[in-house]
Parts: sequence; structure tokens; C-alpha cells
Amino acid sequence: MSRSIPAEQAPDKMRRLIREGKWSAPTAGVCNGYTQANLVILPKAYAYDFLLFSQRNPKPCPLLEVLGSGDPEVREVAAQADIRTDLPKYRIYRNGELAGEADDIREYWRDDLVSFLIGCSFSFEKALLENDIPVRQIEEGCNVPMYRTTIPCRPAGMFHGPLVVSMRPMSATQAIRAIQVTSRFPSVHGAPVYIGDPEKIGIHDLAHPDFGDRVTIHHGEIPVFWACGVTPQAAVMASKPELAITHAPGHMFVTDKKDMAYSVL
Amino acid sequence: MSRSIPAEQAPDKMRRLIREGKWSAPTAGVCNGYTQANLVILPKAYAYDFLLFSQRNPKPCPLLEVLGSGDPEVREVAAQADIRTDLPKYRIYRNGELAGEADDIREYWRDDLVSFLIGCSFSFEKALLENDIPVRQIEEGCNVPMYRTTIPCRPAGMFHGPLVVSMRPMSATQAIRAIQVTSRFPSVHGAPVYIGDPEKIGIHDLAHPDFGDRVTIHHGEIPVFWACGVTPQAAVMASKPELAITHAPGHMFVTDKKDMAYSVL
Repeated sequence: MSRSIPAEQAPDKMRRLIREGKWSAPTAGVCNGYTQANLVILPKAYAYDFLLFSQRNPKPCPLLEVLGSGDPEVREVAAQADIRTDLPKYRIYRNGELAGEADDIREYWRDDLVSFLIGCSFSFEKALLENDIPVRQIEEGCNVPMYRTTIPCRPAGMFHGPLVVSMRPMSATQAIRAIQVTSRFPSVHGAPVYIGDPEKIGIHDLAHPDFGDRVTIHHGEIPVFWACGVTPQAAVMASKPELAITHAPGHMFVTDKKDMAYSVL
Repeated sequence: MSRSIPAEQAPDKMRRLIREGKWSAPTAGVCNGYTQANLVILPKAYAYDFLLFSQRNPKPCPLLEVLGSGDPEVREVAAQADIRTDLPKYRIYRNGELAGEADDIREYWRDDLVSFLIGCSFSFEKALLENDIPVRQIEEGCNVPMYRTTIPCRPAGMFHGPLVVSMRPMSATQAIRAIQVTSRFPSVHGAPVYIGDPEKIGIHDLAHPDFGDRVTIHHGEIPVFWACGVTPQAAVMASKPELAITHAPGHMFVTDKKDMAYSVL
């Protein structure tokens, strides 16, 4: 990992750097040990359906906090944090189409916007590394490979779509340990959803992920698939709300919560 | 346990007995090994706030399933089950006041009613017994003692109220094991929320519970407190929606899901 990544920074100081425009890069590796979160912001008119979609699909959509309608202040997972300024980069979608990026969304803010913070796999990847389980995309310095599956999410009102999974290759012995380790973190996607033959879940070529990058699969390794935080974003985009604001890929919200705070055992 | 309790009954057959009016008693002990659920039904106008209250207070309000607006059919946790007929007894509240009981709520049904099924401590009590941890109220054939605490729930819209806890006395060694065992079941209240001195959470006399019955605390035992499914009902009642329908105490919905299906490890 590059020397320039502030791995030992405190979350509140990191958010201040971001707020002041002094950090606009991805957040992978920053504030080591602190949980990062995906962001989806929707008008209140869509919020019930999205909250229900998350309740019905807790593995891809583990909610860490839902802010009040029109309230930009994070209250549970961070102190003195403003959801409009404290992420390094945002994406603005109109009617399901990407309409632009921004490093501050105060000009887009409305009194009816509801912000959803969703758990992120960065938390369990740290636990995997501590258990000497390889995380290939970190070894290879790229993004995790992600795939659309033929497993449908449970729909909720206007929201529907396929389960998107991330894949990490490892030995069978490592996979068993990885299942144990990630089971302790249901708030950050939890245990894998599938292991082995990708064809069975509608993935025809592991070398061509739908999102992220291809990673090397060594001889004898098996692919292990986790529910992915791209799932709720994909469902939001498929259902074309008039406005949606999300984090830009990799540019997450850094919380004050330790990863271990989300371990159930 | 009485010979007359159908402990080995299949859930679908049990629900049919209930639907046909052949069983109107509490469900404690029936369909051994299958998860039972608390029920709260609210008009859609209150559903977003209640769903958000549950998301913000997952230990007292672990949602197992939320039905669609006006849809009486359970889809996820049971097959061919009608939420209007398949519980042995219901309570009808109007503006926060108990207005009556019924063993069938078809006459109260409306197209805007949303049903919330919430995890129940019966599931983790079975796991405690299997670990030779005493469950005093089962030994003494009464209801678990429950107490209002001075710990506030996180409010959500119109819903607010204190955390209500259930208490089970045990030795310190048993308490340690009980923490491990119940941590595996976050969908049915999970790990205890407090252990030891009741004064610290605003409970002044363990011998006078706010709900349920007093149980014996043996010399050397410590009280162990779990978040309780009465919490969401108490919040609903405190906030006085024009209509709310719940299960009658102890008269739960029997699902097709095994208790072990809710264990994360």
C-alpha cells in the first residue's frame, strides 16, 4: 500500500481533510480499523420502498444508519459529520442515468432527501487478512471483481434487480475459515452467499466481471462469492428515481465505528 | 411441559388448527424447533416511521418479514399463511388504547395495512436450554419478567419510547456461555444488552416486573437482561396510531423457519 495513504489517520480528521477539499481520492486503506460505508440518497417519496428493499435483502444491503428526511447530519456512526461534504466524491443520477460527479453536494440538497449508509466489504477484508486469508484484489492492487447473478433480490415496491456478488479466490481450507470469519459480521455482508461453480449462479466467465477488475485465480483455488454493496445501487438505477445521489465507486464515507464493533461474536 | 402441547406438530398443520379455531391458547412450546414471531400491524401512513424505528433499534425490534401494504399473505417465513387468521389471538388498539381481542381479524382488514413480523426470544431460549443454562420462567411455569428501563430507544418519526428488557437469572459462568450462545442469533434479539446491577438501567425492584411474572433468583445468581419484543409494541402504543393490531401476549405466529436458520454461526 502506498506510503501516501493515511492509514493511521483518525476518522474525524480524515473527514475534515475531505470536507476542506484536501482529499478527493478513493478511501481504500485510510483510517485502518474504522468502518467505511456505501451511500445512497433518495427523495422521501422513494424511501419506504428502499428501506423495505434493504430489510428484505439484508446481505447485499446491510443498513448501518438512515438519516432523517432533509437531515444532512450523521448521528449514529459518526460525530459532527455532514453527509453533503464528507465523502471525497459523489455521483448524481437523474432518472437512473449518471448526470455528473461532484465533491460536494450542498447545491443538490433538498429538504426531502433521505440518506442511507450501507455496510461495505472493506471491514470483513481486514478480518480476512488478519486470518492470513488472501484478498487477491488487494495483492494485485485493483478493484474486486463483481458479477451480476441470476439470483433475484426480493423486490420491494418499485425496487427490484439481481443480486450482485463480489468474488475472492482462495483454497478450500481458506474458504472454510473465511466463512467462519465473515459470519461474525452480518452488518457488513456477512457470510458468503455462494461457493464454487459460477455457472450455477449465472456467471459464465470469471475473467470478465460486470464491475471492477479481473483477478488471478491460482491452480486449485475456488471462487467464493459475497453479496455486494453494488446491489442496492444497481436496484436504484434500474428503477429510475428522478434523483439519486451515491458515493463514487471507492470513495466511501469513513465512520467513527471500529470494524470490530460490527462483529456479533 | 404439559402433554397437551403439540410440541412435535408441523408448523403448517399447527397454523391450520389455529385457522380452523381448534387452537386458541398460547403458543409457548408448540412446534419445537420452529421460530415464532411477534406481530405488529399498522396503517401504511405509519409504516415508514415504524420500519425506521426497527432499523434504528435492531436488538428489541429484529424484523423477520414485512408484508406488502394490504397483503395478508406471508411470503418469506411461512408458506400458505394468512396473517389475518393464523394467530390464535390478536389485540386491537385504537389511538393507543386496547379496544378488544379477536381470534380472527378479517373484519378489521384494510387495503392499507402493513404487517411486521418480529423475532421472539423463544428461539434463543431453546438454545440456552440445550446448553444447560436455566430458563427460570420455564422452570416455574410462568411468563418471563420484563422491565421498562431508563435506556431510550433511538426515536424515528412518531415512534419513541424506553427499551424494555426481559430478565433471566443465572450464575456468572452460565451468563458467559449465554452471551456466546445468544450472540449467534441477532435476528431474535441477540446478545444481552446488560448484566448485573439493575439500578444502573433504572430497574428498582426485580420482584415487581412491569410486564410478565416475578421469578426466583437463587443465591449467587446475577440478572441477565435481553432486549425484549415488548419494546416495539410499547412504542406503538405510546405514539397512539389510530389503529394497531398485534398478537395477544404469548399467542405468536408460528413460522416454517427452523430456529437454527437464524443462527449466524
